[in-house]
Amino acid sequence: MGISLRESKDERPLILDPWGLTIVEDYERLYKEFGIRPLKPLLSDIPNPSPEMRRGIVFAHRDFEQILEAMKGCQEFAVLSGIKPTGDFHLGTLMTAKEIVYFQRQGARVFYCIADIEAYEDNDIPFDESERIAVENVADVLALGLDPRNAYVYRQSKEERVKDFAITFSRGVTLATLKAVYGERHFGLYLSALIQAGDILLPQHEDFGGPKPTVVPVGIDQDPHLRFTRDLAQRFKRKFGFVLPSSTYHKLIKSLDGSPKMSKRDPMSYFTLNEPLELIAKKIMNAFTGGRPTVKEQRELGGMPEACPVYELNAFHFMEDDKDVMGLYEMCKTGKIICGDCKRHTIDVVLSFIRDHQKKRLKYIDKAKEIVMQ
Amino acid sequence: MGISLRESKDERPLILDPWGLTIVEDYERLYKEFGIRPLKPLLSDIPNPSPEMRRGIVFAHRDFEQILEAMKGCQEFAVLSGIKPTGDFHLGTLMTAKEIVYFQRQGARVFYCIADIEAYEDNDIPFDESERIAVENVADVLALGLDPRNAYVYRQSKEERVKDFAITFSRGVTLATLKAVYGERHFGLYLSALIQAGDILLPQHEDFGGPKPTVVPVGIDQDPHLRFTRDLAQRFKRKFGFVLPSSTYHKLIKSLDGSPKMSKRDPMSYFTLNEPLELIAKKIMNAFTGGRPTVKEQRELGGMPEACPVYELNAFHFMEDDKDVMGLYEMCKTGKIICGDCKRHTIDVVLSFIRDHQKKRLKYIDKAKEIVMQ
Repeated sequence: MGISLRESKDERPLILDPWGLTIVEDYERLYKEFGIRPLKPLLSDIPNPSPEMRRGIVFAHRDFEQILEAMKGCQEFAVLSGIKPTGDFHLGTLMTAKEIVYFQRQGARVFYCIADIEAYEDNDIPFDESERIAVENVADVLALGLDPRNAYVYRQSKEERVKDFAITFSRGVTLATLKAVYGERHFGLYLSALIQAGDILLPQHEDFGGPKPTVVPVGIDQDPHLRFTRDLAQRFKRKFGFVLPSSTYHKLIKSLDGSPKMSKRDPMSYFTLNEPLELIAKKIMNAFTGGRPTVKEQRELGGMPEACPVYELNAFHFMEDDKDVMGLYEMCKTGKIICGDCKRHTIDVVLSFIRDHQKKRLKYIDKAKEIVMQ
Repeated sequence: MGISLRESKDERPLILDPWGLTIVEDYERLYKEFGIRPLKPLLSDIPNPSPEMRRGIVFAHRDFEQILEAMKGCQEFAVLSGIKPTGDFHLGTLMTAKEIVYFQRQGARVFYCIADIEAYEDNDIPFDESERIAVENVADVLALGLDPRNAYVYRQSKEERVKDFAITFSRGVTLATLKAVYGERHFGLYLSALIQAGDILLPQHEDFGGPKPTVVPVGIDQDPHLRFTRDLAQRFKRKFGFVLPSSTYHKLIKSLDGSPKMSKRDPMSYFTLNEPLELIAKKIMNAFTGGRPTVKEQRELGGMPEACPVYELNAFHFMEDDKDVMGLYEMCKTGKIICGDCKRHTIDVVLSFIRDHQKKRLKYIDKAKEIVMQ
């Protein structure tokens, strides 16, 4: 498909770090080193693959076969995702939101976790502040199509079953294991890893009907949580009957400055769904591209969409039709479009989406309040 | 008073370990190394000191002055203690129970914690089993005089405020701190240390009227929990307004085989309040004593009550009158009583207490059930 990645012969150890910056330049190594499987061989078997699957953005998985079986056999399954309520909805949370809406429409029961304990442990956000942020975030998810009637949206800090799972799982977890998975961290972050394991297994709690296949769509940098949780699910299988959770992995969209991951530390490197339209336009206009030094060279050699965050905005999120994405890729590759024109076109597409979204989400604020405060 | 301790010039580092065996041979060192203060200088100021205080069994404290002020000024204060529900009530839990009943009668509001999370983390006791054990334990405490009308008895696993305190406190607690206080432990035990900090500060939760002096009467081996909790209380003082918790420390009664601490691993080294009377009698009859190799030597040199677990049974627990304790000490020291006679007399005193207790507690089982299951 349209997205291809830079080849890298870099031999640095590949460390996936859910709380920091992960640079994944060579996805192939994931398959060898972490037991993650490519999604491509299953793609033709998925009844109604999402645009992200078709475009190779959702590119890998663990145990997705059992989800596929449930989807095809119309059996019960769950999808779990969530948001760390630290600020406005950005393109990373947008990706996850689209994924859960997709799985909800394929028949999954949704569990959407507001990770306020992690926001506290990792970012020092007090619980009253994360509550306020969560209302905003949930309004975004509703505007993006989540049907609240078949979704359990909850805050970690208020969900006793999650805390109790964490306490139960904590017995026998050694510091060596935690260090191997997460590196040297303070105690609270390890605790929030256990809480997150509780989240991932919550859909299998007896109160929700017990063991069932559960898919957790995440960015590839979040895999350590999955590995850790799958180990715990295995260890507590006899007690709770857990089915090992499945996962899908999406690639991480580049920073607008061309570096591998967007960073909150640099507001020009990303935008949220709720900032002023002019500011978003300005950020895209200033973005790094895969263009050539001169127009002449670009016309002759073509651009490099695979290195271009502006191209990724289109392919990851804002261009609805696969054919348009393919078309843009071809136009760029063959030098038929230059960066200025592409940016202006991208700004139109993005702002049209954002304008529509901002209007919709206003209507959902009250519903979001009701859901979060319940 | 009657109890004096072996002098020791041992220079091994003094490590207090709440989850293992602590050998405290030289109490003086506690004052120097851990900032614990002797209780004796305050004793004449305490309006109605307990037998354990008068006898020097409760021998040390932290910040007891603020409890004394509350007692004398009839101000609000709390006492917190608890039991790890791993089995029957033994002489260690008896000591703590007597202490909380004492403070309750001096006007304290009682918080009595059933440490079922610690029982799970430390001893792998499932929560349904610890619930059953807790009912038995609470019946014992009621029989020992706890007035349930002014006491909050709760299970850790059901007390969300305790868990939420633990989560809040966990932020920023480093592994280095935990290792320094508790040694190298698995994650669940560290978590149960944080839960216990939540217990100790629960009386100061806003739901219970907010900050107030709280005394925690414990065995000297439990001081690490206090130090750790006081550090946390200091750190979260601005947020919650905590008063640093006070503590009193009691000496640990010797094992019946003469070694420094009773151990569940050796059932002949201790007895519980609920075992068959004949078995208790047999254990006391078989106990190590501070006697001399021959009756002749004992008559000439006198016995060594300071090394004698049978003497301690009388002094710590079962002899009601201080004068009787003093009398027994003198009789032993001067060779006027030999071990066989002393043991027979001790058995009478102990069995009379136990018989009475076992009868009483039967009446409290239903009330205990109601309290635990609430």
